[in-house]
Amino acid sequence: MTASTPSCALITLAAVLSAAAAAAPPRSMGELLVQSTPGDWRKPDPENTLYLQLDTGRVVIELAPGFAPRHVAAIRALARSHYYDGQKIGRVQDNFVVQWGEPATKGITVPALAGEFSRPITPALPFTVLPDTDGYAPAVGFTDGFPAARDVAGKTTWLAHCYGTLGVGRDIEANSGSGAELYVVIGHAPRQLDRNGTVAGRVVYGMESLAALPRGTGPLGFYEKPAEGVTIHSVRVAADVPVTERIPIEVLRTDTPLFAQLVELRRNRADDWYKVPAGYIDLCNVPLPARVSSSTPPE
Amino acid sequence: MTASTPSCALITLAAVLSAAAAAAPPRSMGELLVQSTPGDWRKPDPENTLYLQLDTGRVVIELAPGFAPRHVAAIRALARSHYYDGQKIGRVQDNFVVQWGEPATKGITVPALAGEFSRPITPALPFTVLPDTDGYAPAVGFTDGFPAARDVAGKTTWLAHCYGTLGVGRDIEANSGSGAELYVVIGHAPRQLDRNGTVAGRVVYGMESLAALPRGTGPLGFYEKPAEGVTIHSVRVAADVPVTERIPIEVLRTDTPLFAQLVELRRNRADDWYKVPAGYIDLCNVPLPARVSSSTPPE
Repeated sequence: MTASTPSCALITLAAVLSAAAAAAPPRSMGELLVQSTPGDWRKPDPENTLYLQLDTGRVVIELAPGFAPRHVAAIRALARSHYYDGQKIGRVQDNFVVQWGEPATKGITVPALAGEFSRPITPALPFTVLPDTDGYAPAVGFTDGFPAARDVAGKTTWLAHCYGTLGVGRDIEANSGSGAELYVVIGHAPRQLDRNGTVAGRVVYGMESLAALPRGTGPLGFYEKPAEGVTIHSVRVAADVPVTERIPIEVLRTDTPLFAQLVELRRNRADDWYKVPAGYIDLCNVPLPARVSSSTPPE
Repeated sequence: MTASTPSCALITLAAVLSAAAAAAPPRSMGELLVQSTPGDWRKPDPENTLYLQLDTGRVVIELAPGFAPRHVAAIRALARSHYYDGQKIGRVQDNFVVQWGEPATKGITVPALAGEFSRPITPALPFTVLPDTDGYAPAVGFTDGFPAARDVAGKTTWLAHCYGTLGVGRDIEANSGSGAELYVVIGHAPRQLDRNGTVAGRVVYGMESLAALPRGTGPLGFYEKPAEGVTIHSVRVAADVPVTERIPIEVLRTDTPLFAQLVELRRNRADDWYKVPAGYIDLCNVPLPARVSSSTPPE
């Protein structure tokens, strides 16, 4: 009769519930992700991963060389030359962007690059189309985990400006960006920037360290006093960081049946809280989950 | 020849430039707002205005009695009973919401109200339609300065969840909200909440005091330790505050030719920085400017 002791009964009940949960269709993103397999996740290439270190934590950025090869190469080289180390975040504009760097920081003039605002569609380039459209592009979806848009008639594709997008600052001239000045979106998606600037990557971890920074009180959210600037201690390419000091981030793949399920679960919320499913989702409202891999000891 | 002294020449040039700017079509929101007249702005009713006081500043909220009369009355009464004073903001979820209050704070149980998720369209209710649509609603636009949506076939209209929207927290049951628990959107518009919760107003000033709060590290962004909670010193109805202590906020009217011009300027950016105008804007990307009136001394 030991099986009827309370603790054994509890264990048995838990096992039953667990089995039921595994069998039942997931009703939320959390329930779905519990059912994910290792193949649903990918580890960003350390060569395409930046660690931006602030007092408040480490921000992990995945670069997008498939869309901005020249700028990504420049940013990687600038990081390796310690160009960004000790720079200040000088602009935090509420509901828009956090921005740092400038063309002539440290007396170094960084060469301007031709803008990489869009690129040709090629057969090798994956694109998971979102069932929904918006007015900013003929079609939207995901390429290698990045929110993207495409114009099949025009044969071009580009990365979208969503929350967490890393963009390249530039002056009036389209070809005036260099990678020396960068920004991250911290508000409602400013999709009007699409095809007007080079998107070089996106934040995959630690976004809150940027998003919670005090807003600048000057025009365009610039800090009015130099002392208000937030110091960037370092920007490193993850490949250059000892393995034991890396954060083993995994991001959810966007080209899997599980991701398609996630999109559908977010288009039509099935959990009990929701009374009216939207039947729609806009590109930048689709969550792109990341996790710290449990197979490698986190920092 | 005094007119040719450098300073006079400068003044003359400035006057000419100013006259030219007034005559030229505005190419940016800033240039447009310079041309606005007092009639393009309105002062929110102090009876529908809340002051939420934090260490970091005062947040001004305009309530929406036209859409949530029961909840607005309840929130006003709770503020007048000092119910919110000393409460903690206990949840700050990155790219989602800041939330405070709970049903039984201070041992007081606040009665639940029937949800006010949408309301009938009536001839008296203004609606400035946005030229663009999205997949969340048959039509979107603005009612009395609030981002709104409508379903003419279904004869209903509702307020949209955009950055800065004030919503009423509730449990699973649709009619479980009371106004005791409130949240403000601090991220990309969670439009899936539309018609699933009561929108009671929106922040018109001081949003950065909420948006820059440290994110909670617990599930759903709840602070894990009570000490992390951010104290709300007071919530007051502006009408109860001496006039000299009010902030004379004005918000741009959304039913004017000037506002239509603003929407068009944002749909197709005309300033030199933009190379590809979007030809579209989504509802929550339309700025709703507010200013502190210069005719009354600011606090």
